[in-house]
Amino acid sequence: MAKTVRIGLMGLGTVGSGLVSLIERNAPIIERRSDVKLEIARALVKDPNKKRPLPDDKVTLNPRDIFDDPSIDIVVEVIGGIEPARMYLLEALKANKNIVTANKAVLAAHGDEILALAGANECQVGFEASVCGGIPIIQALSSGLIANRVDELIGILNGTSNYILTRMSEEECTFDFVLSEAQEKGLAEADPSFDVQGIDAAHKLLILAELTFQVKAQMNEITVEGIDRITPVDIKTAHDFGFVIKPIAIAVRDGDNMDLRVHPALLPKLHPLASVHHEFNAVLVKGDAIGEMIFYGKGAGSLPTASAVLSDIVEIARSDYVVPVWNPQKSIKFAPIESKSRYYLRFPIYDKPGMIGKIATVLGDHGISITHAMALLECNETNKGNVMIVTHASKEQDIRHALADIQKAGTLTETPLAIRMLE
Amino acid sequence: MAKTVRIGLMGLGTVGSGLVSLIERNAPIIERRSDVKLEIARALVKDPNKKRPLPDDKVTLNPRDIFDDPSIDIVVEVIGGIEPARMYLLEALKANKNIVTANKAVLAAHGDEILALAGANECQVGFEASVCGGIPIIQALSSGLIANRVDELIGILNGTSNYILTRMSEEECTFDFVLSEAQEKGLAEADPSFDVQGIDAAHKLLILAELTFQVKAQMNEITVEGIDRITPVDIKTAHDFGFVIKPIAIAVRDGDNMDLRVHPALLPKLHPLASVHHEFNAVLVKGDAIGEMIFYGKGAGSLPTASAVLSDIVEIARSDYVVPVWNPQKSIKFAPIESKSRYYLRFPIYDKPGMIGKIATVLGDHGISITHAMALLECNETNKGNVMIVTHASKEQDIRHALADIQKAGTLTETPLAIRMLE
Repeated sequence: MAKTVRIGLMGLGTVGSGLVSLIERNAPIIERRSDVKLEIARALVKDPNKKRPLPDDKVTLNPRDIFDDPSIDIVVEVIGGIEPARMYLLEALKANKNIVTANKAVLAAHGDEILALAGANECQVGFEASVCGGIPIIQALSSGLIANRVDELIGILNGTSNYILTRMSEEECTFDFVLSEAQEKGLAEADPSFDVQGIDAAHKLLILAELTFQVKAQMNEITVEGIDRITPVDIKTAHDFGFVIKPIAIAVRDGDNMDLRVHPALLPKLHPLASVHHEFNAVLVKGDAIGEMIFYGKGAGSLPTASAVLSDIVEIARSDYVVPVWNPQKSIKFAPIESKSRYYLRFPIYDKPGMIGKIATVLGDHGISITHAMALLECNETNKGNVMIVTHASKEQDIRHALADIQKAGTLTETPLAIRMLE
Repeated sequence: MAKTVRIGLMGLGTVGSGLVSLIERNAPIIERRSDVKLEIARALVKDPNKKRPLPDDKVTLNPRDIFDDPSIDIVVEVIGGIEPARMYLLEALKANKNIVTANKAVLAAHGDEILALAGANECQVGFEASVCGGIPIIQALSSGLIANRVDELIGILNGTSNYILTRMSEEECTFDFVLSEAQEKGLAEADPSFDVQGIDAAHKLLILAELTFQVKAQMNEITVEGIDRITPVDIKTAHDFGFVIKPIAIAVRDGDNMDLRVHPALLPKLHPLASVHHEFNAVLVKGDAIGEMIFYGKGAGSLPTASAVLSDIVEIARSDYVVPVWNPQKSIKFAPIESKSRYYLRFPIYDKPGMIGKIATVLGDHGISITHAMALLECNETNKGNVMIVTHASKEQDIRHALADIQKAGTLTETPLAIRMLE
C-alpha cells in the first residue's frame, strides 16, 4: 500500500515549478520504486496574479495555511536567501513538520539553529539540493563514504563561475562579455556577485566540510577569492603551460589544522576536474579506504535541483525518524596550511625595459624561484602590458610579501594577480 | 548514546580482512558520524591454521556459531561465489538477522529468493559492495536519483578488463602479456575468465538495471562479449581514428523494449568514460531530470569494498526496518534494440591482392557503407595480416550477416572481430 505524503511548498519559482512538473511527470516511477505517493497540498506564492502550474485552491499567500494544516507532512523551502526562508523553516519545525530545503545560504548561516530545533522536535531535515543540485553528494558523504577518513575534498561547486571560465577559454573573450551571455541564458543572476566572488561556493563548501570532517566553521574562516579578475591573457597563458583555470573549493586537513578555500586555480589538463566544463559541477573526495572518487553532474537548474529535493522527500517519507548525529570535532583549527604550491603571477605594467628584471629580483629576494617569465603588451597601442611569471613551489606567505613589495615600488598599473597551480 | 552493532562475518579473505582493519582504524570516525559502534562478534573461516587479524576466540569453523548467536545483529557475507554463500545468507535470514553482502554472483542468480525471505522475515539486505566497490552507486540509483526516469546507463564495471585494455594501450603489448602482469599485481584472478569474458560485468549490470529500471532480467537476456579477442592492432587502429577501446556495460530502454549488453566498445577520446583508466570503474546515468551524471572511483579491492560494506552496516544499524520495494515492470521485453551504430571491423587474412575489394563488396551487398578501409601485414614474415574497416552507422543484424558471408567465402584465417563505436 502506497503511503501518501502531503507537501507544503514554500516558493513556486524556478525550482518550485520544476518540482511540480517533475512530480506530475514521474509520480508513477517514484511510487513504483518507493511505495511513496507524492501530493502537493499547498504552495506559498508572493504574487497572486502570476500564472501557476497548480490550481488556484492549492495556492496561498499566507504561510500559516501551510504550517497550520495538520495534513501536511513535509515543508519544502525553495525560496532561497536568508529571510523569510529561515523563519519559515523554524515555523515549520515548530509545527512538527519535517523540512526539506535547497537553500545553502540559510544553512551556512543558520544551520545550527535549524538543526537544533529539528532535533528537539524530532523532525527530519533534508538538504541534498543545497549543494551540487542533482548530484547526491550529501548522501554520499554522510552515508556512502561514512567509513572513510577523508583528508581532502576538491569541488567545482559554482556552475556560473565554471560556465564563465569555460566560455572565456573557448571564445577567448572577456569576463564581462561572457557574463552577459550567461545572464541571457539564465546561467547567471542579474546580480552575479554571490556566484563570481566565490560566496555561493563558500556556503556549499561549509556544508560539505561539516558533513565530511565533522567540523563547524564560519564563513570568515574560509579564504574566498572570486574569478572576476581573470582576463583572457591569464587563460591563454595557463593554456600554453598545459593548464586550465577552474573555480575550485578545497577542504584539506593536516592533523588538527584545516584549510578551507575558494578560489580559481590552474589545474593540469589531465587533472580529473580539468574536464568539468560549462555549468557542470564535480566533487573529488580522497578517502583512506576508497582512494579518489569523483561525482559529476549538473549542479543547478530547475529539474536537477527538483530531483534532489524529491529524493529527500522520499527518503524522509519511507524511513522512520533517524536521530541526526552532530558531534563536531572541537580540536580543529581553521587556518591556511602553509604547504607550498606553484603559482601563476600576473603583474600589470607600463612597458619599459627592465620590468621582468625588477619583478624577478624582488621575487628572488623573497626566496621565490621562477620557472618561466614573459612579458606581453596589450594590443590597444597604450604602452600597457603584463608580466606573467610561473614559480616553483613557494609558500603563500612569501608570495604575498613579494607582491606587496613589488606593488610598493610603484611600477604597476593595477594590483597583481596570483593564482595557485594544483598538481 | 552510541548503539553497538555486533557483526557476524562470513569469510576472512581479502575483503573480510579489509573490513576488520578498516573498523579498527576508523571506528572513532564512524561512531562520531553515526553514533554506531561496530564490533566483530565472530568470523567464519575455512582454514583454522592461517594467521588472522582477529583473536582466536572470535574465529570459528562452524557457521552455526554465527546464526545461533542471538547477540549478533548483522551477518556480513564476503565469501563470494554461489554456494555456500547462498545457503549462509538464507540461514542468516531464517535466524532473523539483517544481511550485508558483496556478492554479485549470488545476487544475480538468487537475488529473488534472498529478497523474498528477507521481506517475509522483515530483515534488511545491504548490497552496496556488490557493484563498483567503494562507489555508492546502489544508494544513488535507489535513493538519490529516485525521481528520474532513466533512459540509459553506461558503466565500466569490471576493473580487471579495464586495467588490461588500458595497459595494452599504454604499452602496445598483447592481451596475454598484460593479463600475466595483472595477475602478478593481484588485479586479475588465477582464472580470469569471469572478468575478461564479461560475466562479472553482466552480473553487476543485472543488479544496476533492476534498481534503475525496476525490471527483472536473467543472465541469458544479456548480450555478453569479452575483451579476450582484442589485439594491439585493434587498439592502435582505434587510437588512430581518435577512439579508445573500453569494456562497457549498457542498459538502454526504448519504450517497453530494453537492451542489456556487455562488450568492448570504441569510445571517442572526449567521451566522459574514455578517461576512466586502469582498475577504475565509472557509471554514467542519463536521467530526465538530472541530465548526465557520472560516478567514478575504485571498483574493487579490499578497502574500497570494505568501505561499501561498512556503509551498509551503518545504514541498517541507524534506521528502522524499511520495507523493501520491488515492483518489477512486467511489460518490459529484453531484446537487442535495432539502433544503428558505427562499427570497427577486423578481418584476419592471408595477404593477397584484392582482399579489401572482396570484403568491401560483401559489406556493400548488405547495405553497409565504409568510411575507412586499411590492410596491415603482420611483422613476423608470415603473409598473415588484417583488413580493418570502419563503417557508417549500420544495423547489428546487417553486420552479423555480412560477417557470416565473408567467413563462408573462406579467405579469412580466423573469425572476424566487430566492435561497436559509441558516439
